[in-house]
Amino acid sequence: MAEPAVSPGDTLGILGGGQLGRMIAMAAASLGLKSHVFCPDADSPAFEVADAHTMADYRDEAALGRFAKSVSVVTYEFENVPAETAAVLARHAPVRPNGDALRTSQDRLIEKQFIRSLGLETAPFVAVDDPGALARAVAQLGRPSILKTRRFGYDGKGQAMVREGSDLAVVFRSLGQKSILEGVVPFVREVSMIVARGVDGGFRAYELNENNHSGGILATTTLPARVSPDTERLAAEMARRIADALDYVGVLTVEMFVVPGRNGGPERLVVNEIAPRVHNSGHWTLGGAATSQFEQHVRAVCGWPLGSTQRFGAIQMRNLIGDDVGAWRTILAEPGASLHLYGKAQPRPGRKMGHVTRVTPEPRKG
Amino acid sequence: MAEPAVSPGDTLGILGGGQLGRMIAMAAASLGLKSHVFCPDADSPAFEVADAHTMADYRDEAALGRFAKSVSVVTYEFENVPAETAAVLARHAPVRPNGDALRTSQDRLIEKQFIRSLGLETAPFVAVDDPGALARAVAQLGRPSILKTRRFGYDGKGQAMVREGSDLAVVFRSLGQKSILEGVVPFVREVSMIVARGVDGGFRAYELNENNHSGGILATTTLPARVSPDTERLAAEMARRIADALDYVGVLTVEMFVVPGRNGGPERLVVNEIAPRVHNSGHWTLGGAATSQFEQHVRAVCGWPLGSTQRFGAIQMRNLIGDDVGAWRTILAEPGASLHLYGKAQPRPGRKMGHVTRVTPEPRKG
Repeated sequence: MAEPAVSPGDTLGILGGGQLGRMIAMAAASLGLKSHVFCPDADSPAFEVADAHTMADYRDEAALGRFAKSVSVVTYEFENVPAETAAVLARHAPVRPNGDALRTSQDRLIEKQFIRSLGLETAPFVAVDDPGALARAVAQLGRPSILKTRRFGYDGKGQAMVREGSDLAVVFRSLGQKSILEGVVPFVREVSMIVARGVDGGFRAYELNENNHSGGILATTTLPARVSPDTERLAAEMARRIADALDYVGVLTVEMFVVPGRNGGPERLVVNEIAPRVHNSGHWTLGGAATSQFEQHVRAVCGWPLGSTQRFGAIQMRNLIGDDVGAWRTILAEPGASLHLYGKAQPRPGRKMGHVTRVTPEPRKG
Repeated sequence: MAEPAVSPGDTLGILGGGQLGRMIAMAAASLGLKSHVFCPDADSPAFEVADAHTMADYRDEAALGRFAKSVSVVTYEFENVPAETAAVLARHAPVRPNGDALRTSQDRLIEKQFIRSLGLETAPFVAVDDPGALARAVAQLGRPSILKTRRFGYDGKGQAMVREGSDLAVVFRSLGQKSILEGVVPFVREVSMIVARGVDGGFRAYELNENNHSGGILATTTLPARVSPDTERLAAEMARRIADALDYVGVLTVEMFVVPGRNGGPERLVVNEIAPRVHNSGHWTLGGAATSQFEQHVRAVCGWPLGSTQRFGAIQMRNLIGDDVGAWRTILAEPGASLHLYGKAQPRPGRKMGHVTRVTPEPRKG
């Protein structure tokens, strides 16, 4: 279909009403766009800052059709958009990033095969469709190894360790669906590369994020990452190869492991997973970079020029998970701390309630 | 009345739905607050980013009552809130800044008398209630001088020059209401000081803004202002005196003229007017300072700790007025330029459509 240009005053459609959708909607507003958020949940934080919202199921074709007709372009805050949903929407409005990005990132097996097909490294993996396949996979990859569901995993959910002595039948049942077994990567750090690709193929990379997880959930992101300049460059090149191969439009996140080099060689980057969206590890760009990842995503999906990714200083971003948010007043009183809360009513354990970014000026490089 | 504490998740009431209300609502959202915007205009830009809105007249007591009961605290984006409106609201929720700030800033005569009562300098002025009074005032202050309506002037509206040869009857009729005649201040620059005062009397000042107007409308703001360090300090002290005298809560703007010293003495500051609100000359703080004036205002009116006013570099903020906004795509492509659009549909002449801020890193002071 023809894809007309998007202009300020037009409406951006956003699938998903969580904090990522909320921050995308706010970035859209700062560029003069309206937002229409589609989400099945009544208490969606993004509804509060959107010009319009639709509360309906992602399989509700009539609601999807009305939604898509009311907007100039559709994007999403999460990769588990059903393929049928994307197809229905695409009949009425451009969907960016495209269906290839969704299909590839929704399934760990397809994702890893795709990454390997680009000549990039992943953890060793074997598809596991049943308990018998798990036994064969463990024989191949050894213990410890990690069984992960192919679909719908996030924040460490949908994963089970296979240790010495683990009962494989029990491990398989704990997930109970098609999975892959992954070998353990002996990483020294976890990093993520956030990049943007425009409708015209233009490309911008932020600097590499160094991430620390706790209980499977991102706890902190710091920059600069403790990697070599060569590794920084390599990470951006890898992300670009992935984005180009998908003919990607929008912000793309590539999570990677930094692994020591073999036989004293340079450190290596192993791709863990890709997220076709803005990402928690990029929240520091809100106030810590010339263009936030949210504004960058809006620019990209609207077909507008991409913005500068310049970083303003040394960064520490900390997630406020569950009751962490109780410290909001103390954080507000801290010079140099920038607080962002997502408007969620109940601070349940493991729930991302907000984040705080600390930017420290860095000495100029001579 | 008792004034309960405001917490994230509560609702901020905002009177006025223009770009200032819009940017206050967005700052409130980033701190986890909901916004409820009250404005009589159907196409209010702030409605698009607010959780709730009421479209009603400022004299509609029933609507005002429902609005005030639905929020934890009320603030406003403009000083011409009718006194009766503020009184109705104050029955149900704290109104910040308070009624004194409104009464003082709504009337140029009361405002100037108040400023003089603090020992601060204003332009020479005489109250003018009728054509006869204008003749006497002109005899006293000379020509050229400026007749200004006491109420409802903004962006150069409600003003008329009295020049050599001006017909005073015609000049008076051109405004046709109670006014004041002001002597012309021989200023070298126009500046504004934006400060915040908290519920606990805490105080923070941004650095002085140097403003250039075109056709009575702010065209650009630059920082640092070309004034001495003594003048910077004096401006903050003057604003603090004004804020303390009003028992002010929120962001306050004081517009001033910089005037050469008498007989080679230090440069002087003459107060032009005060605005009990966030101000166009402070838009650069959005991205150019550690805490934007909008977030600072939200913090203050909620009774929360004030934020750092640290400036990130040399600043140039340019308003996009009327058709200026047509350059949006070019501005987006400019490295270091940060574009903000207000979501207004029609770029009429003189209409503020957006602004662009350019922040240039400055050499560190030794």
